[in-house]
Amino acid sequence: MIKKYVYGNPFSTEAAVENIIPSEDSIPYFEADGQGNFTLTLAENDIVYGLGEQIRGINKRGWEYVNWNYDNPNHHEDARSLYGSHNFIIISGAETFGAFFDYPGKMTFDIGYTKRSEMHIHAESSDIAVYIITGEDEKDIVKQFRKLIGRSYIPPMWAFGYGQSRWGYKDEKDIRNAAEGYRAAGIPLDSIYLDIDYMENYKDFTVDNKRFPDLKKLTAEMKADGIHLVPIIDAGVKIEEGYDVYEEGVSNNYFCKNAEGGDFVGAVWPGKVHFPDFLNPAAREWFGKKYEVLTSIGIDGFWNDMNEPAIFYTEDRLADTLSEIEKLASGNMGIDEYFRFTGMVAGLNGNIGDYDKFYHNINGEMVNHSTVHNLYGMNMTRSAFEALEKIEPEKRTLFFSRSSYIGAHRYGGIWQGDNKSWWSHILQSMQQLPALNMAGFLFTGSDTGGFGCDTTEDLVLRWLQYSLFTPLFRNHAAEGTRDQELYRFSTVQAMGEMIKIRYSLIPYLYSEFLKAALNNEMMFRPLSFDFPNDEDSLNTDDQLLLGNELMIAPVYKQNAKGRCVYLPEEMMMVRMRKHDDFDTEILPRGHHYVRAELEELVFFIRSKKMIPVCKPANSTDKIDWNSITYLGYADCTYTLYKDNGISPNPEDSLEITELR
Amino acid sequence: MIKKYVYGNPFSTEAAVENIIPSEDSIPYFEADGQGNFTLTLAENDIVYGLGEQIRGINKRGWEYVNWNYDNPNHHEDARSLYGSHNFIIISGAETFGAFFDYPGKMTFDIGYTKRSEMHIHAESSDIAVYIITGEDEKDIVKQFRKLIGRSYIPPMWAFGYGQSRWGYKDEKDIRNAAEGYRAAGIPLDSIYLDIDYMENYKDFTVDNKRFPDLKKLTAEMKADGIHLVPIIDAGVKIEEGYDVYEEGVSNNYFCKNAEGGDFVGAVWPGKVHFPDFLNPAAREWFGKKYEVLTSIGIDGFWNDMNEPAIFYTEDRLADTLSEIEKLASGNMGIDEYFRFTGMVAGLNGNIGDYDKFYHNINGEMVNHSTVHNLYGMNMTRSAFEALEKIEPEKRTLFFSRSSYIGAHRYGGIWQGDNKSWWSHILQSMQQLPALNMAGFLFTGSDTGGFGCDTTEDLVLRWLQYSLFTPLFRNHAAEGTRDQELYRFSTVQAMGEMIKIRYSLIPYLYSEFLKAALNNEMMFRPLSFDFPNDEDSLNTDDQLLLGNELMIAPVYKQNAKGRCVYLPEEMMMVRMRKHDDFDTEILPRGHHYVRAELEELVFFIRSKKMIPVCKPANSTDKIDWNSITYLGYADCTYTLYKDNGISPNPEDSLEITELR
Repeated sequence: MIKKYVYGNPFSTEAAVENIIPSEDSIPYFEADGQGNFTLTLAENDIVYGLGEQIRGINKRGWEYVNWNYDNPNHHEDARSLYGSHNFIIISGAETFGAFFDYPGKMTFDIGYTKRSEMHIHAESSDIAVYIITGEDEKDIVKQFRKLIGRSYIPPMWAFGYGQSRWGYKDEKDIRNAAEGYRAAGIPLDSIYLDIDYMENYKDFTVDNKRFPDLKKLTAEMKADGIHLVPIIDAGVKIEEGYDVYEEGVSNNYFCKNAEGGDFVGAVWPGKVHFPDFLNPAAREWFGKKYEVLTSIGIDGFWNDMNEPAIFYTEDRLADTLSEIEKLASGNMGIDEYFRFTGMVAGLNGNIGDYDKFYHNINGEMVNHSTVHNLYGMNMTRSAFEALEKIEPEKRTLFFSRSSYIGAHRYGGIWQGDNKSWWSHILQSMQQLPALNMAGFLFTGSDTGGFGCDTTEDLVLRWLQYSLFTPLFRNHAAEGTRDQELYRFSTVQAMGEMIKIRYSLIPYLYSEFLKAALNNEMMFRPLSFDFPNDEDSLNTDDQLLLGNELMIAPVYKQNAKGRCVYLPEEMMMVRMRKHDDFDTEILPRGHHYVRAELEELVFFIRSKKMIPVCKPANSTDKIDWNSITYLGYADCTYTLYKDNGISPNPEDSLEITELR
Repeated sequence: MIKKYVYGNPFSTEAAVENIIPSEDSIPYFEADGQGNFTLTLAENDIVYGLGEQIRGINKRGWEYVNWNYDNPNHHEDARSLYGSHNFIIISGAETFGAFFDYPGKMTFDIGYTKRSEMHIHAESSDIAVYIITGEDEKDIVKQFRKLIGRSYIPPMWAFGYGQSRWGYKDEKDIRNAAEGYRAAGIPLDSIYLDIDYMENYKDFTVDNKRFPDLKKLTAEMKADGIHLVPIIDAGVKIEEGYDVYEEGVSNNYFCKNAEGGDFVGAVWPGKVHFPDFLNPAAREWFGKKYEVLTSIGIDGFWNDMNEPAIFYTEDRLADTLSEIEKLASGNMGIDEYFRFTGMVAGLNGNIGDYDKFYHNINGEMVNHSTVHNLYGMNMTRSAFEALEKIEPEKRTLFFSRSSYIGAHRYGGIWQGDNKSWWSHILQSMQQLPALNMAGFLFTGSDTGGFGCDTTEDLVLRWLQYSLFTPLFRNHAAEGTRDQELYRFSTVQAMGEMIKIRYSLIPYLYSEFLKAALNNEMMFRPLSFDFPNDEDSLNTDDQLLLGNELMIAPVYKQNAKGRCVYLPEEMMMVRMRKHDDFDTEILPRGHHYVRAELEELVFFIRSKKMIPVCKPANSTDKIDWNSITYLGYADCTYTLYKDNGISPNPEDSLEITELR
């Protein structure tokens, strides 16, 4: 059951799609002061799940989180904010319930940080809607919540293929080299991503025609080989006379305004930009239509970036800083002045004070950005999604975003942002999955191999062995870091086998994804959700259940040749070198140390379950669905969900088959 | 056997204390080009141990390390350099041998990073001495190497007590509050550290007499309660007319020189400073004598900091930067200019180019700092140690340093530097211990609770459960972070019990430390050193053997209630809540999942071994050595090493007792 409690006059975030009449009762479980503060006592063994993208383990106890969408490339243990704000939690213990704090500004979740036995939640204003969800168990609570917030975005089937990306593919030749590198190595590939390099001076909806003289032709050429090009779109629109998007935005007042009523100026990749007012329906519609510039030449997928929105600096703060530096420099700069100087400069990027300086036009009312900050990225993706429903009504377009709020899951996926080539970021990504699924984000994954920092060969191989299970499966790296296309490495053979294994699992992964989306379920769950009375399951934070048939337990440590795995029930361990070279072993319930050489993928099939596997193909469109065989226990069944992979409404072509 | 191979004309680092006649043969194992390059093929299962303080696991394969002493507060997975350079490695495989690259400048160790099967070692110049050590096994190789480099520093026994530190104890009252906080909570304490706050404007060998009006009295008052005050000494000497250290250094040419022959100017905490020329014997002697300013008022321990040396900025680079900023600011700053601006500012601190700008006077010859950079910190601690041998000839003084090179281990310990309040930094510290021990650094430990970032209560408690086994056992935190004195937390009771357990283990820890120091052994060893033929031991990187009797396997994950532990032989598991409240269980060889509630310490006693334990006391001087009882297997013996804890030469009072 879901009950809604309203305080003050909350902003309508459109996170929920069902209209629930607010309760007259006072909120249960929490002590609420009506000033945006909610306090709850935690018993020693209570577990707190949720908070979507936030890091620090599956159980969120012990840290203070600040839900404020933030371009934070440092996914460090002490990070309090990342790109998305997902204010949904489940408290699991003697009493188990879910709570969604529907509030678009800054929120703090102190989950036993200040005081181990106390959770304190704080919204910056007293205008907030809270939903309390009770149910049979965690899975039931999630199901109810997901129904409340609406069906999750389903991407085209080709988006389940493997993708290669790199910030730094400068021209058509770089793209062709990547495609050829994969094809020559015999490694399947469904997409190549275009980072900001493809644009003309980082202007949205432009293509640099020196470096990409014929993107239409390139797109067609790639697609003929099963490879989709997926360009990036950034939130900020470059200020440049004669640039149509800029001109139209200005003349129609589609950009966010400053306090004086002028168009607000920030700076990101293009230099000085205006920010489209995605909270203004007219601006949203206008910006969305621009995607046609690219879909009209054959593009069918996009990633929306920098939409927290990221702000490298604002003109006035930079000017203040420079004038302050001038003053400091003219004196005898001592150590205090030096730290003031370097601190000011370091504080230009993402300065929280800058978000107070601009406004949205929401039905004629000027609303300060900070109060609705966390909705910006969601409405950028919504802008694209809703426009493409009209532009390409017959097919799904791939969308995923960096920034999000609950509700954004209806319009696209998200990727887990600018991680690093750190071993710990394999585990970190995995630990994010269940809470993202709770919040509706099913199409997600991490930058495989790591975005920032130099990667290593063994890290890439181990990371593949995890990511090959995630819906979004993309290798991506930052400019200036070590090349990490798979064909660069001496273990390319083994890496290629991992990609082929992915493709052989697509029938299963796609089927489980459809089930999760259509039935409001989680594709990735903590062990505890299925084994709630098993203490070791409650404490397992580096393994996940995948759908109803699999358990994954990747190796995420350098030089490790195995790992400890906990089996909450008897399972079949699969040790796979190639999709058709593997061995299996039935292991009993309990703790096991499991060997896994660097080139071996290990995963587990649950008791009395089986999964469909197919022959790998060079791209998803070439998968022969008639090649399906089964892996797992004998004498059991699997329910396969399948559609044509393209219809906007999957029900139009959905086939549900009981396989045995 | 140790053989020495000399290329060119190496600088005499004084790392080795034995004079080995260089071999005429060409170096075995490696391909050497005589230009500072050494290449070796690695077999798939070879393990590479060593590199001292460097992070990324016990087995160093898979990363590129740059041994260049560096004030690096970001002990991130991608860190290539930390504070110390310890160029000793052991390659363990079909052929096992040790190699010490005695070279004081920048060295790179590419250990299967560029190419998985290849190790490439590079020194910036061709003048280098290499020692190749062969022996029975890894332990034998270490023993020979340690004999080569001389006996490790042995601190006074009180240094094995627990210490409290914080950057931010501003005055006598803060110190007294810390002492009272511990005493009121009944928690043992042997030392309180004075960070840079105690000095007058960060001037070495001064005391701010407003905030510390009578440090002598405070020192005596504390010592009467068993608490030693341990002040910090920084490398840089403030430029200030009338300040004696500055004046003497200038007039005697004891500071490092710039290219023009003037005193080189850098900036650190005091603002502009000169750097004492610790490589000049006369300057070293002069600086060392200054410690008497503090020993004369009762101080008997020091930590030497900022001695990489850290340089926040140099005058000329700052001036260039400011003038460049002025130019950029006067134009229309675009995004490229902006990144140039912020990059320049971020690049001021620790800029490697600054180290080319100064010189040491070594026997009359001006030697560019960069070529001998890694020796600076070592010679600072040597300066203090050698002076105190004369000033306080009857007793040991506590010294530990941030920066080091092999050889520094004879003059003091090191702490593991400015870590963070991250769970991963518990494991990181533990993984550093064996390689530090190999390089002679026995007196070491991490900033318990974490230095940077805000700590959490559970992190502190788990960290204590690891650190209570390390010789240096200090709680330390940075200014601006959350308070982390143990008495601040609701679990102070359990935390206090952990400290008491530490004190009950001091007879064992001190005894094993003396054995390691006197017999050139490692106090902390990987399991593989004692179980070289056991594959699971080879792959265990989150457990260590401690002395000959214990194995530690701390819990280092948030919210964990246990962990997997591998037992290479039958062992006795001890689960301890208090020093006198514990249970034991004999576990067979193999992998085990071991429960450990937050307030429980778990460790292991090796088969047929026992350890001495005593009654805890408020400080080490109050330990009743007659209260020793035994914990472990029955019918076995333990060899106790004990001395008076104070004599510079431990042999003078050494007692070796066979206990049964």
